[in-house]
Amino acid sequence: MPDPTDVESRLQRLEDESAIQRLLLTYGPAADAGMAGVAAGLWLEDGEYDWDADGDALQGSDAVDAMLRSGAHRALMAEGVAHFGGPLLVEVDGDCATAVNYSLIMRREEQRFYLWRVSAVRWDLVRETSGWRVRRRTNRLLDETGGGLQLFGAALQELFEDGPR
Amino acid sequence: MPDPTDVESRLQRLEDESAIQRLLLTYGPAADAGMAGVAAGLWLEDGEYDWDADGDALQGSDAVDAMLRSGAHRALMAEGVAHFGGPLLVEVDGDCATAVNYSLIMRREEQRFYLWRVSAVRWDLVRETSGWRVRRRTNRLLDETGGGLQLFGAALQELFEDGPR
Amino acid sequence: MPDPTDVESRLQRLEDESAIQRLLLTYGPAADAGMAGVAAGLWLEDGEYDWDADGDALQGSDAVDAMLRSGAHRALMAEGVAHFGGPLLVEVDGDCATAVNYSLIMRREEQRFYLWRVSAVRWDLVRETSGWRVRRRTNRLLDETGGGLQLFGAALQELFEDGPR
Repeated sequence: MPDPTDVESRLQRLEDESAIQRLLLTYGPAADAGMAGVAAGLWLEDGEYDWDADGDALQGSDAVDAMLRSGAHRALMAEGVAHFGGPLLVEVDGDCATAVNYSLIMRREEQRFYLWRVSAVRWDLVRETSGWRVRRRTNRLLDETGGGLQLFGAALQELFEDGPR
Repeated sequence: MPDPTDVESRLQRLEDESAIQRLLLTYGPAADAGMAGVAAGLWLEDGEYDWDADGDALQGSDAVDAMLRSGAHRALMAEGVAHFGGPLLVEVDGDCATAVNYSLIMRREEQRFYLWRVSAVRWDLVRETSGWRVRRRTNRLLDETGGGLQLFGAALQELFEDGPR
Repeated sequence: MPDPTDVESRLQRLEDESAIQRLLLTYGPAADAGMAGVAAGLWLEDGEYDWDADGDALQGSDAVDAMLRSGAHRALMAEGVAHFGGPLLVEVDGDCATAVNYSLIMRREEQRFYLWRVSAVRWDLVRETSGWRVRRRTNRLLDETGGGLQLFGAALQELFEDGPR
């Protein structure tokens, strides 16, 4: 028979994993639909979105909001675009969590779609009173620069340093 | 120590999310394998599959079954096709549920595959005695018509109108 | 009020599903990052990776490790590659489990990415003292040979023969 305290912590862990997945899976549809406020609301007010090795990281949820209201983003939307997030590998550690997945940006062209960007993504999250929020999202292309490869390598090293799961 | 009534409802919610994910993730492999009965069995007998802005919605699971037995679908299968469903954002509300994801149809061509259709998808589900079933699936391409964009926008608006999660 | 024995088995099932998802979602990032040991560690020592109808199956986790250290794999990594795994349909049956998903290998080319391989995947898993491990992974291309189609068909037939879920 399970210990009631264990039941609470085991349920909490499963619920945390579910809540984090729902939070992060909101990003793509919100970005595609131009719901800048919803997408930016995933982040802490002072959260960060380091979306490319070449660019400066977006500082604060207001900067994420502004990016999604920009002409460049609106032009993608007008053409047809999917900010697809892959399945999430989530590790919860108390009030912090890390998630790793792939981000695929697909764009419309001549009655088809093509893979414009394929990135390795790492999400660092914290639990706030109102729920889980993103402290930092880091994206790196899985291209010849090795940026994506290094991001995945470092993230897995951290996840596995506490021993086998 | 958790309240036993809470434990029941918390477990039930997690199990509902899991059951819905397994149900909906069956569609792609069943469609690719030509298992029309399995794929159509996801729907209520009088369920609906509104799969494109241009076409008439398929009315009833028999119509889904017939579509998957059609020559057009068989031709896709013979060439090589993947009806890939992305990770599901699931919201359970008692005996109803809504899920949102991406559908990617990939086709074989010259030793590669290409992205033929990239759609925004909304699933409306109900709990039957035999388990969760699809009342309506709506697909819209994420293309220049804005159909996919509008589908995602309306779905997220509903999911978020009950306040922050 | 739930029966405490039921609570234990219901929690265990949800935790098993979560653990299997985290295990299997590790493969792609580990393969992309060249962490051969982490990726090979998913398998039992005498596990099998039957990755293509044309090739011989890799026998043992050492063979998976060697494949990921090979020049061919290193060349893919240098160009830019994503070994993307789709959402997992997981069925746990005591100390065994089956999972079905799609594997997409995306490669870099001329500032874009393309879909090189799109496969149907079946994972057979067993619970060890140290956690879930892969006994066998089988991949088949969803191409004109019908290999992927047959893999999905056979796997779903098994999953559904125990009656409706």
